[in-house]
Order: sequence, then C-alpha cells, then structure tokens
Amino acid sequence: MSDPIRVTVWNEFRHEKTHPRVKEIYPDGIHNVIAGFLKQQGFEVRTATLDEPDHGLDDSKLDSTDVLIWWGHMAHHEVSDHIVDKVQQRVLNGMGLIVLHSGHFSKIFRRMMGTSCDLKWRDDDYERIWVVSPGHPIVEGVDQYFELPEEMYGEPFDIPQPDELVLISWFRGGEVFRSGCCYTRGAGRIFYFRPGHETLPTYHNENVQKIISNAVRWAAPRFTPVRVFGNTQPVEKRA
Amino acid sequence: MSDPIRVTVWNEFRHEKTHPRVKEIYPDGIHNVIAGFLKQQGFEVRTATLDEPDHGLDDSKLDSTDVLIWWGHMAHHEVSDHIVDKVQQRVLNGMGLIVLHSGHFSKIFRRMMGTSCDLKWRDDDYERIWVVSPGHPIVEGVDQYFELPEEMYGEPFDIPQPDELVLISWFRGGEVFRSGCCYTRGAGRIFYFRPGHETLPTYHNENVQKIISNAVRWAAPRFTPVRVFGNTQPVEKRA
Amino acid sequence: MSDPIRVTVWNEFRHEKTHPRVKEIYPDGIHNVIAGFLKQQGFEVRTATLDEPDHGLDDSKLDSTDVLIWWGHMAHHEVSDHIVDKVQQRVLNGMGLIVLHSGHFSKIFRRMMGTSCDLKWRDDDYERIWVVSPGHPIVEGVDQYFELPEEMYGEPFDIPQPDELVLISWFRGGEVFRSGCCYTRGAGRIFYFRPGHETLPTYHNENVQKIISNAVRWAAPRFTPVRVFGNTQPVEKRA
Amino acid sequence: MSDPIRVTVWNEFRHEKTHPRVKEIYPDGIHNVIAGFLKQQGFEVRTATLDEPDHGLDDSKLDSTDVLIWWGHMAHHEVSDHIVDKVQQRVLNGMGLIVLHSGHFSKIFRRMMGTSCDLKWRDDDYERIWVVSPGHPIVEGVDQYFELPEEMYGEPFDIPQPDELVLISWFRGGEVFRSGCCYTRGAGRIFYFRPGHETLPTYHNENVQKIISNAVRWAAPRFTPVRVFGNTQPVEKRA
Repeated sequence: MSDPIRVTVWNEFRHEKTHPRVKEIYPDGIHNVIAGFLKQQGFEVRTATLDEPDHGLDDSKLDSTDVLIWWGHMAHHEVSDHIVDKVQQRVLNGMGLIVLHSGHFSKIFRRMMGTSCDLKWRDDDYERIWVVSPGHPIVEGVDQYFELPEEMYGEPFDIPQPDELVLISWFRGGEVFRSGCCYTRGAGRIFYFRPGHETLPTYHNENVQKIISNAVRWAAPRFTPVRVFGNTQPVEKRA
Repeated sequence: MSDPIRVTVWNEFRHEKTHPRVKEIYPDGIHNVIAGFLKQQGFEVRTATLDEPDHGLDDSKLDSTDVLIWWGHMAHHEVSDHIVDKVQQRVLNGMGLIVLHSGHFSKIFRRMMGTSCDLKWRDDDYERIWVVSPGHPIVEGVDQYFELPEEMYGEPFDIPQPDELVLISWFRGGEVFRSGCCYTRGAGRIFYFRPGHETLPTYHNENVQKIISNAVRWAAPRFTPVRVFGNTQPVEKRA
Repeated sequence: MSDPIRVTVWNEFRHEKTHPRVKEIYPDGIHNVIAGFLKQQGFEVRTATLDEPDHGLDDSKLDSTDVLIWWGHMAHHEVSDHIVDKVQQRVLNGMGLIVLHSGHFSKIFRRMMGTSCDLKWRDDDYERIWVVSPGHPIVEGVDQYFELPEEMYGEPFDIPQPDELVLISWFRGGEVFRSGCCYTRGAGRIFYFRPGHETLPTYHNENVQKIISNAVRWAAPRFTPVRVFGNTQPVEKRA
Repeated sequence: MSDPIRVTVWNEFRHEKTHPRVKEIYPDGIHNVIAGFLKQQGFEVRTATLDEPDHGLDDSKLDSTDVLIWWGHMAHHEVSDHIVDKVQQRVLNGMGLIVLHSGHFSKIFRRMMGTSCDLKWRDDDYERIWVVSPGHPIVEGVDQYFELPEEMYGEPFDIPQPDELVLISWFRGGEVFRSGCCYTRGAGRIFYFRPGHETLPTYHNENVQKIISNAVRWAAPRFTPVRVFGNTQPVEKRA
C-alpha cells in the first residue's frame, strides 16, 4: 500500500508536432501534461509514445506498470498487434487501463470491449458532465457537474453496458453520452473517460485532472490475483 | 403465446378531477388513454384507481394480471402497504411492472428498488430522449431519438444501476436523466419510463405509446417460473 | 414475427471423422443432431463446417442468418480472421450468437468477450446444472436443475461478468461453473452454454435441447436496429 | 484516509444465550468474535445487539459508523421498522453494510434488495467456496477456494443480480450458491457473505476473517458524496 502507484502515460504524439493549435496547448505533448499533474499526486509516472521502439512499451516497462493511460487518434492502425496482445494480457492479469477521448477507437479499447466502440461526433460544442454515481471513488472532490468547451460525442456509443456508469454528458447541440464507464476484465480494471479533444485545453482543467487522478487510484491493482487455469485433478473432499 | 397479454393500468386519478388543464388533456383519466392505445395493440386491458376498494387491485384482478402499469403522484402515501406487499409478491413471481414518470416515488417502485428513487425536477422544459441500446425490444420502431415538451427530471436518480439502460434524456435546461431503465427482480421484469407529466399530452405521443406497448410485451411473463425455497434434502447423486 | 427464425449451426466437424466414440454418438456430426432438434421446433436450419469454403459462412449465408450456433474445439486456430471479423460485425448489427462448450476458446467468443475465456477442466465428471434465474426465457420448461455425465469446467472462468447469469453448474469433483451466460453486444445477443463434450451424448439430452431451442428464440433479432454513427450536425431545437 | 474505519458489529445475540453449542463456540456472542479480529486489523470497532435500547443503534452511533455488519436469525421481526428506516438512509448516504449468513432474511437486507431473499437450506453439509472474481479487493489473500463444515444454502437465491459476484459455493449435498455478492445502493456499498451458521466455528476461520476484513475496507465510504435532489433552476449556459 505504501509503494507509489506506477503509471505509464501513452500518447500517440502526432498532432502536437504538426498542428499549431495543439502545439500551443500541449507544447511537450498531451502525455507530459497528464504526467505532470499525476506526479503532483505522488504517483511514479513515465511516458511512452507511438514512435518510440515498441511504442515505448517494452516488456520491462509493461511489467512495472500498475496503470496504463492511453490517448490516440489519427494513427490507431499504426499500433502493432503484438503490443496490443501484450497490453491485453497485462490488463487481464490486473494492470489498470484508462482510455481517454478518441482512444475509444484504439485497438486496445476495441480489443477489451469486443464491440466497434463507434459513436457520433461534432466539433465545437459545449459539454456539461453530470455525476450519476455520487459516492463512486472516481468522482471524489467533483461537484454535481462541471463544464467544458469540447468536441461532442453522442449516443449510441457501441460499448458493452458499463459495469458501473459514473458520468453522463449533456451537449449544447442536443446530444448525450456515457462519459465515464467502468469495467472489470479479468483481474484488471478499465475506465473510459470521454473529454480530451486535442485542440482544447481539457487536460489543464482541474476537474478532468481530479477524475484521471482518482481513476488511477481506482484502477491500480491491489495485489497479485490467483488465476489458475487448465487441467486439474479433483480435490479430495474432507469431512 | 396465443393468449392476449392481460394488462392492468393503475392510476392515482386525482389530478384529472381537480386540475382543469389535466382534465382537458385526460378527461377520462390518464389510465383510460393508456388503456386505449394498449387495446389497439391487442392486449386485454383493465384499469384500476386509488379510490376504488383495494385501490382496484383485489386478489382476483392481480392474479389475472400479466403486466401492471403504475402512474401516481400526489397521493403515494395513501396507497395501502398491504396492497404494496401483494404487488411486490406478484412481481417476484413473474408479473411485469411498468412504472411511469412521477411513479418513481410510489411505494411499490421504492419497495422494488430499495433506494430513495429521488431526483431533480423542474417544470416547463423540453426533452430529447435518446436510444442508447438500439436493438432492445422496448425501442422497436423508435428512431434515434424523439422530443417532447416535458417537465425536467435530472440526475442523480437514486436507483440501483439498471440491468439494462435503454434511454437517456437530454433537457434544454442543461440536465440529463436515465429515462428508460430495465430490471429483473425475482422472476418479474420492471421497466421505469420517465415522461408523463399530467399537464402535458405526453401519453398521446406516438413514440411514448410505442415504448409503453413494447414494454408490455417485454415485461409479460412467458411461463410459470419454478421457484422452490426452504428446507431441502440432499439429492442422491447418480453415476 | 411469423417468419421462422433462421438458424445456422456451425461445427468444426473434425472429431466426428477420426474419433470412434464421437463418430458413434454423432455419426453425421454434432451440427446435424443440433439442426435436427431445432428443425422440430419450427426453425429454418442450415449447417456450416470448418472445411467448407469460407467455413460454410459466405456473405449470403451470414446475411440470412438470425442466430448462429458455434461448436469448435481442436482447430480454433484454423478459423480465418476474415470470417471472424464478419461474424463479429453481424452480431453487433443484431445477429444472435450461441457458443457451446469448448467454443469458449473459439476466436469469435474471445473476440466478443475481450478476455482470455480460460477455465479449468477435467474429463469424466458428473454435472448438476442449477437454474439461478427462474423466469428467464432460456429456462422455460426446465426444472430446478438437471444432471449430465460430463467433462468438468471449473472457475475462474475468465469472462466479463454476464449481463444475466442463468445457470450455475455443480460438479461431483468439487468445482462450480457459470454455465449459462447472457450478453448483449451492440444490437446482438450472445449466450454461452457450457455442456457438450464430444465423447458424451449431451446434445441428445432433452434439457440441453430445450435450453438451446429457448436460447435461439431469445437471441433472435426482433427488428433492424437503428445504429447511426459518425459526424453529425446539431439538431435544431424546436419549442 | 489515515483515520481508522469505524465499524459497528450488530448481532441478534439470542442463540448464544440459550443454545449450549452456540454458547460454547461464541461465549461472548458472535459480535465479539467478529469485533475481535476486526480490531486486530486496526479498525475502530463497537458492537450493538437487539435487546439494547434502539437495538444499540441510536443516531449518534449510526452517524459515526462507516461500516455496519449485520448478523440475525430467529428474531428478524423484532427489529423496529424505525431503525431499519434509519439504517437504509445511512446506507444510501454512503455507509457500508455487510450482511452475514442468515441475515439474508433480515429486514434491512430485504429492504435494500427489494426481493424476498429466500433460498434453500439444510443443516450439516460441507462447503467449498470458490473465488470467481480473482483480483477483487474482497478476496485479497484468499486462495482459489477454501472449505468449511457448514449449513447448506442453495439456489435459487431470490436477490437482484449482484453488481459483482465474487464467490460461488459448492456443497457436498449437490447444491451451489452465490455466496459473495456486491451491490451499490445510493452512495453505499453492500456485501452479502454466506457462511456463518451459529452452531459452527465459522467466524474463527482465517479465510472468513480475511474476507470480512477486506469487505470492511471495500465498503467503507471514501468521502461525503454530493447528492442534491429536488426542485432546481436551469443553470445558465456559459460560452
């Protein structure tokens, strides 16, 4: 319990290199802003990006990661299936996974969900995010709702019904969206969190930072699970 | 399968007697409008109201009801606990229950949920109801969304997480609400459906009528369930 | 509603060709025994096997299938990813999927679940299958429990928690297993049903036949779902 | 986070006074054995029993309770509805509730569940409790399964499907049971844990003690939830 939670923040890190507006908001990349506020929470934080070898996710890094955060958008298809296999296996064994915004279409999220993860979208809207599960650890310190200038994501969101639905978004243009979705898969916990369009300063928002920080604590494995499979002999019945 | 589903529509039937606007929209009571469109679907429909003996729900009527629909608002406390006990028992044994609008605060809904069923509300808003579970039998024939001038109900809605969440409402004033919620309790199926403010012609709306009709088909028991409880002897193991 | 449900029974169909005991129990293959009792229920039934072109699942066949049943065991890896992609897409669009016994390790089931679907197993045990959700349409006509000489499958079963858990198995050797698991994925319904070891006459058992027949009715799509995704314009708000 | 979790252990405390075998195993009552091992975990623990004024649960005690543990059996009907109302309200506001064994029929558990909570039972059996959700915090430190000489409880167990099912029991006599069931109701967390027959030394068992201790940590509220209900004005939309 006393060891710090070890977080790896993965970012595609492409928009920031080419898009002036994104570069202005996230000069060192979305991952470094996220890593920054997580470090202030006392977590042990590293980053990883698409264009590094193994996308920055070699075995030793994955093996020492308690919670993996994932932001991707334009290059989902460039992520190696081999790495996706490994991440999935780690999640099933207990690693937490937090998928952000356009990561809904990432290979790893679609792999874990088994669905298309498709949705509606539109630029330039305004979002009010409501807490529908007060008392859930992921919304500690968050008021009834908070607001963000944001891209719209709308229902239907093609995901399995969340094990726990924590947040629902209202959009000025008339849509709603399940914006905070908790899952358990194997021994791992997965949280999908909707906001985070790259041309907006969403990850500088205090409520967004609180929720991601809370989600890290919620998703971190507490212990090594006992998962024994395969051929087995009958246990002798005592008594 | 060939026998018609037997529906009992229960209505508090008080507003309609004293409130001119309600009287105008529902001259014979909300229950008779609902009974009317359900009859057109081929269901066998009766009604029951608060001020009848046993609130119109004597044993023989309950015993011959496949699906009970419930609308109440100002007089929830006048419903006898004795009748609530009986309705609960029927639901657990397989009777369907559809709770409408302000019925969220009825004794029977709170009994079945175990929670306060509290929520936010405000008159005079505008609602857009989104289907979040396309393919669910309750939304057959309904488009992606439909709209109603309606009272606002807002989150948090203090209910157990629905077994299936089918509809989410967007309100012009800025709120969201889980408006179509499915539950299984015992062998019975329960559907909560949000719209239906008494001063508005909601139950004359085609989409509302479709959803209630579909919900009747969804909630109707298919067969007599085998529910055996109590002290039991060990079964001799063959082989 | 009056058109018969169109079922395709897919079978790996390898054991039956080489293993004398399996050949004896299922001389024309497991698929033909399943197809046989389903036809008696009035369904329109076809079969498909691994060694046919496209594994017997070309587009026209998939497009005219309401419910696909899947039995596989020793050759899961020979199933083409291309076909798995297509089946997944059909399920999300509403096709029902029933996965039997060793199909837990099939590509399509693991794809839809997002987990390893691993479990414990042991030959030559005895199973008592308990109904834990009386009133569920899948157990219509089934008593409190039924028994089978069967292979043992034991927990943990690495699946997402079922949307509805209908059956739990007890095994003489001391294990338990979630044997009847319902899921909704996209607009499609999925049922996993545990029994069905190839060296035992399980698919000749009356209760097993009832459950598979009921599951076909439960999983069959009722209508074409409205699933609209992608870029969208704000809807003009009336009123 | 650093303040100890405040636990109140409620026990009916009748069997221990009259039944020699129970007296022998729990001379100071079941509550004091449970309180004893919880104190060793660093929790702040008090007890309460049926025959105290207000059943030992006055307002100041309830208001300073993070997690309430409940054991009852022969005198459920003697528990005042007034106290049940208060406990329910506290749970919805965030207090944890752990219900043990025959507490399945307690007023508070049936109130929170909305169902009959009925089941099958038989004395003198042998139980093997399997972990079906490895990685869940409630099974930290517990192996794949553990065994107990115990009374049998068998399915169907008339409860809402658990939000998370953690444990399933196998019984020598041929039954199965959902023995570890997690629920969220309002802001509160509820855990039902099956074993604990009064004539057996179950609460002296190391695994049982581990699970109850873990459940206390799991059910303890993390913060004061924001639950605002009632009439509300539209929020002015910024931007």
